[in-house]
Formats: sequence, structure tokens, C-alpha cells
Amino acid sequence: MKKYVEMTKSELQELLASYKTVYREYQQMELKLDMSRGKPSVEQLDLSMGMMDILSSNDDLRCDDGTDCRNYGVLDGIDEAKRLLGDMIEVPPENIIIYGNSSLNVMYDTISRCYTHGVLGGTPWSRLDKVKFLCPVPGYDRHFRITEYFGIEMINVPMTPEGPDMDMVEELVSDDESIKGIWCVPKYSNPQGYSYSDETVRRLAALKPRARDFRLYWDNAYSVHHLYGDDCDVILEILDECRKAGNPDLAYKFVSTSKISFPGSGIAAIASSLNNLDDIRKQLKVQTIGHDKVNQLRHVRFFKNLDGITEHMKKHAEILRPKFEAVDEILTRELGGLGIGTWTRPKGGYFISFDSLDGCATEIVSRCKKAGVKTTEAGATYPYGVDPHDSNIRIAPTYPPISDLKVAIELFSLCVKIVSIQKLLSR
Amino acid sequence: MKKYVEMTKSELQELLASYKTVYREYQQMELKLDMSRGKPSVEQLDLSMGMMDILSSNDDLRCDDGTDCRNYGVLDGIDEAKRLLGDMIEVPPENIIIYGNSSLNVMYDTISRCYTHGVLGGTPWSRLDKVKFLCPVPGYDRHFRITEYFGIEMINVPMTPEGPDMDMVEELVSDDESIKGIWCVPKYSNPQGYSYSDETVRRLAALKPRARDFRLYWDNAYSVHHLYGDDCDVILEILDECRKAGNPDLAYKFVSTSKISFPGSGIAAIASSLNNLDDIRKQLKVQTIGHDKVNQLRHVRFFKNLDGITEHMKKHAEILRPKFEAVDEILTRELGGLGIGTWTRPKGGYFISFDSLDGCATEIVSRCKKAGVKTTEAGATYPYGVDPHDSNIRIAPTYPPISDLKVAIELFSLCVKIVSIQKLLSR
Repeated sequence: MKKYVEMTKSELQELLASYKTVYREYQQMELKLDMSRGKPSVEQLDLSMGMMDILSSNDDLRCDDGTDCRNYGVLDGIDEAKRLLGDMIEVPPENIIIYGNSSLNVMYDTISRCYTHGVLGGTPWSRLDKVKFLCPVPGYDRHFRITEYFGIEMINVPMTPEGPDMDMVEELVSDDESIKGIWCVPKYSNPQGYSYSDETVRRLAALKPRARDFRLYWDNAYSVHHLYGDDCDVILEILDECRKAGNPDLAYKFVSTSKISFPGSGIAAIASSLNNLDDIRKQLKVQTIGHDKVNQLRHVRFFKNLDGITEHMKKHAEILRPKFEAVDEILTRELGGLGIGTWTRPKGGYFISFDSLDGCATEIVSRCKKAGVKTTEAGATYPYGVDPHDSNIRIAPTYPPISDLKVAIELFSLCVKIVSIQKLLSR
Repeated sequence: MKKYVEMTKSELQELLASYKTVYREYQQMELKLDMSRGKPSVEQLDLSMGMMDILSSNDDLRCDDGTDCRNYGVLDGIDEAKRLLGDMIEVPPENIIIYGNSSLNVMYDTISRCYTHGVLGGTPWSRLDKVKFLCPVPGYDRHFRITEYFGIEMINVPMTPEGPDMDMVEELVSDDESIKGIWCVPKYSNPQGYSYSDETVRRLAALKPRARDFRLYWDNAYSVHHLYGDDCDVILEILDECRKAGNPDLAYKFVSTSKISFPGSGIAAIASSLNNLDDIRKQLKVQTIGHDKVNQLRHVRFFKNLDGITEHMKKHAEILRPKFEAVDEILTRELGGLGIGTWTRPKGGYFISFDSLDGCATEIVSRCKKAGVKTTEAGATYPYGVDPHDSNIRIAPTYPPISDLKVAIELFSLCVKIVSIQKLLSR
């Protein structure tokens, strides 16, 4: 296969004409396909329908310690839910607070609390002139939106297949007291599907930040979301590493069952040091009497234990793996060797990250959209929605049925070709 | 019955001695009774057990517009949940946002948002030197704790059986730009069970506050929580009255199903003007992808409509009414005519408010506790936990079985007598 960059102008023009013809055929198909968000498919949701039967009117809804889960109380979650999620994320139950249905909400509330009341007695961020966050890029748009909403200045840090550029992270946090945190998706990162290397985790845990209230915002969203069973990424447990490094309070770890049971009807949690959790409880007891314990109990009785979760995740993988493989196959077939795009091949998570030639992403996304295929907006994977290279596109292959997905990726590849040729011709 | 104040010192001393003997007998019973919080009883919780069967694995969990309630999405609640709660609180569905499990959490988030981002483009409260709230007293301790947590200065406003002292409210809010809100429990108030008169509601709706971001924090916690069926309190609908008074954005109305279905596993909501809701959605979309729609659907399918809720609340009333009546009977029998205490006789809600002689409440609560009966802490019904008269005690008769409740109130009455006599003797 000849690289586009090695082709003559007339070769490229000929190709462009033929691809435009095909593109018009796609437009006539009036597609309506959505690859924009990391949503489970209907088949995946069906896997958890047993949850609807697991609690019945004949059941005793008291938990192990006798607490009636139907009534008020239990600020930080029932013990068995802490154990279940604790086992899942390798953290003892006492290091966990169970929240409501959304880990995003927990992250928002965490930032909001830092803003209004500070961290462990530190100055509330609302009283500081400047607060900054490190944002490994490309990254998760909803993280960036939270920090943007609170007026926090975001600094791009390049992601590598090993995690964020640690030389840069170390230098920045040791210099600048206004840097209060870093957004991390340490396993099967959004959007690349990269997992932090042991060295990266250790260097993060051993950071010596100028700001005493600096924290790792450790969004462990895909801890058990493997595609290939035992052939999976394993990362070091962050709270443990922080303790070993003499930084016991450095990390807030966020987790939820959103992509395990039902998104929007799962349970979320924060894991951290006892110090940090005590600090959080002081606020939490003002905010609520307690979260939904019946739903906590529902999850515990449905999954039973970590084995239950592991088995369940294998079923998710059966559905997801062919989709990820189809995307890779089509991209390889259509774009391989052309030198106009690279993409990731994750072993888990919910996304594939695609990088086009510089300056092409916005136009590719727009062309896809005009033919009825929605991808995540170009730029969304960067703070403020600004991708300095205009090259990154997040592909979310999980939601559409595989037949639709194939059509969508074929169209996507076609758009990459058309836009790349136009780019090359305009040079 | 002779009033204590009219008795001679020796008469009082004789009484005291005999009551202390009885008190020691109570202490030997090793009671462990809790009248401290407004929790439904086990019998009441059992009323909603049908909820556990209403969704099964054979059911279609899509809502009317086709949305799959199991997946991500629908920021502000499914339409049918808005209709159900809207009918319950006399507000059109478009004026409602459905939240998670706790209206307290919604109130906290509302204050927090005002603090970090202001109201409708106004200055965030974090940037103001002083923010104040009006607090009708006695009132709900968890309201006061939220405002205290955000450093908001609380001003006591006396409650009357018609609602807060409106002359004082009108004068204060028209004078002082730092007054940003008033906490209201307009129906079956906590702790008195008073309901605001039409005149009070109209005067509140017609307020002309100096602060443009002043709001009525309208906690309609007991809107359908009647004890005597049709013989119930009716209050004017606040959003409607605000609109009529030319103050369409003045009220945030909070509501939940906590004491209808399961506390902690219900659904909560805010109702307000379209302007206010648009303002709120700007924040909400940063905070979450959406709340628990499966639980929203569960509530809709269980209650079906307002009639379903009304019928359900009658069953609650059957359980609660004898408890409220037992409290009143015992207090009347034991304390009637003695001139050492007054109490309310609400037609709904969750509490009875008791007022002792000045300077006795703390000691009464403490004596009860020492004999194994827990009531709400003295002072809790006032901002900062400070009751200037040390006279108000909130009685929560809902949770204990009626036999326990009777014992608890008999002991309570005894403690009132002992402490009152000691007070009179010490003069």
C-alpha cells in the first residue's frame, strides 16, 4: 500500500473523486448511527435484568448488621457494599464511602467541596486567586468540564502508552502551589485504553507537590472492564502505593458500577485514606442522611462477591470484544499503510482513540455527521474543547449493534481518506 | 388541677420526692427507646414492599417516550416521574427537575451552587463578605446545618401557627441585601406541624427583597402527609402565588417521596420557574449524566398517579394517627393544667413540638436519656443549636411501636414534672 504522502497530486485527485462518489452513496442511505458516548448496548443491559428480581416483597431488606435498608441512616454505605466494591478495587472496606448512582457526581462534589471548604483544613479554593489542574491529554471531556466550571485553569500534559508524561508532571507540581490536582483514568484510559505502567503509578504516588492539598483524582472507571479475560492490564493499587511512598493522603479514587450493572442506576464510591474520608464525612453528613441503601443491597445480593462481578464482566466482554475487533479490522483494512491515521488497540475499557493527520479531526467528524454517523465532537478530549493539533477523535464502539458499527466505521474510514487527501492537496 | 406555680414550696418538694421514686423505677426498666428523628416505622415501610416486585426481569424498562431507563441519559428526570410528582405538589411537569434519593441533598446542592456560581448570573455568595438567611424558629435542624456549613449567618424569626412573623420578614428582606433566603416548611412544619396561612403565603410570594438573588427555600416535605384524611391543612401553591405577585423566580420548592415510599430509596425533586430551572440545568449537566431512572420508573409504576399516592398515604395515616393521639392523650393526662408545658396537635407531618418552662429543655432531654429514652437534642430546633429560652423539644412519635411510645411519653412527662419543679424551687 502506497502512503498518501508519497502519491502524486493527480493520483490523489483521482482517489478523491472516487471516494466522494462512495460518500454520496452513504449519504443516500440516511444512516442514523451513534458512536459518540461510552454507553453499554441493549444486550449488555440485558445481562443485569436479574437485578430486577433479586429483591422481592418477601425478602428481608436488612443488612448483615441488622440495619433496615429501607429506612433512613447509614451515611457512608452498608458494610457489605463496601466489601463488594472494596474487593473489586483492592481496597479495604474502611477506606470506602458508598455514594449514589454516579461517580461523576462524586467527582463534582469532591471538587465542589475543595472549592467551598478546602482539603483537610486547607484554604478553600474559592479564596485563592488561581487554582490549576493537570490534564493528561487526550482525556475525558466530563472531567475537564468539572474543572472548567469551577474556573480552574487546566494544563495539558501529554499521555503516553505508559501514562502521563511524568517528567512534566513532577516538575510542574513541585514548582507551583496553585496546582491542586491531576485527572487520571489509570486503567484503559479514556479515550486511548492505555493503562499506567508501574513506574508511572509509583512516580505519581511519590510526587512531592508544593500544594499540600494536591490530590490525584484517580478515576478507576474501568477497573474490571477487560475484553480478553486473563489477558488483561494490571495496575498497581494507588492508595497502597501512596502509603508506601509516605503520601498516604495523596489520592482520591473514584469508582462505580455504571458499566457493570446499569448506568444511572448503579452505585458509586470514593476510596481514600481514613484522614481524607473523615474530612469528607464532615461535609457528607450536612449534605445527606444517606444514599440509596436498597440499591446497595440489590447490588450485593445480585453480584454476591468479586467472583460474581468477574463472571458478569466476562459476559460483557463477549459482547464488546467483537465490536472492538471489528473496528480494528476495518480501520486496518481501510487505512492501514496509508499514513493518514493511527489508532489504539486496548485490552479493555470503552474507547478507541484515533489520531488523524494534523488539522483533520474537526472536518472528519463533521463529514461523518453529515452522512448520519455521530462520533464524539472533535476537541472534546482536550480541556476547553481545544485540540491543538485538531487530530484526536474518540471512537465509542460499544452502543451500536455490530452491523451498524461496521457501517459506521467504514464510513468513518472513508471520511478520514477524503479529508486527508483534501488536506494533502491543499499543501 | 392546681398549677405548679401556685403550689407551696413544701407541696412541690413532696411531689418531687414521689416523682423521683417513680423515675428510679423507670431507670431500672433499662429502656432503649428512640423518639429523636422523624423516621417511618417498620409497619409503614412494609406498606411499600410491593415496590420490590413492580419491576421484574420480564418487564420493559423503557419509559413512555421510548428511553431505556437502564442506560445513561435524561438529565432532569423521565416525563412520567415529573408528572407524578408534579400532580402531587400541584406544579406542571415542565417546572420540575427530578433528582436522586434525597431532597436534603437537593437543598445542599442548591445552596452550594449559589455559593460557587450565584443565582441567575448574580455574584457567587463565596465572593460576598456576608450572606444571611432567615430561619423561622423553632425549625428543622438539618436546614440550619446546611446554612451554618456555608458560613451563612442565620437570623431567628419567630414562628406562629400562621407561619413566620411576616412583619419581621418583610422588614428584614427589604432592608438588607445580604439576606438571600428563608427556610420554610410551609405545611405541617417541622417541628410544630403548623401550616402557613393563605395570608402568609401571599405575603411571602409578594416580598420585595433588596437582594435580587433572594429565594424562598420552600421545603414541602409533608405535602400529602395528612393524619385525618380530608380534614387536612391546605396551603396555597407557592410558584403560582409568586407568579401572580410578579415574582416568578422567587421560590425553590423541594419535595421527595422519602416518607411516602422508602426514606433513602425514594426520589426527590426541585420545582421552580423555567428561568431558575434553566439556571440549575447549566450546573446539573456538569455534575451528572442523570439520576436513577430505574427508580423513577419504579415509583411511577407502583403509585401510577396521584390517586395511588393519596390511597397509599391513607395507609400511612392509619398507622401514624394513633401514635400522635397517644402522645396528646398522655401529655394531656399527665401535664394538663399544670402550667409547665404546651404542645402542638398537628393534623399531619412527623412531629409534635413541646415547650417547657424556660430553662428546662436541656435538663428534660438529659433526664429522659438517662432513663433510656432518646428525644431530639434540646436546642436542635434552633440555628447553631441555641434555643434562647431553652424550652423547645421536638417529639418524633412515628418510629417506635405504640406500646413503646406510650412508655416513652409517660417517662417524658415525668421528666418534665421533675425538672419543672426543680426549676420552680430554685427561684
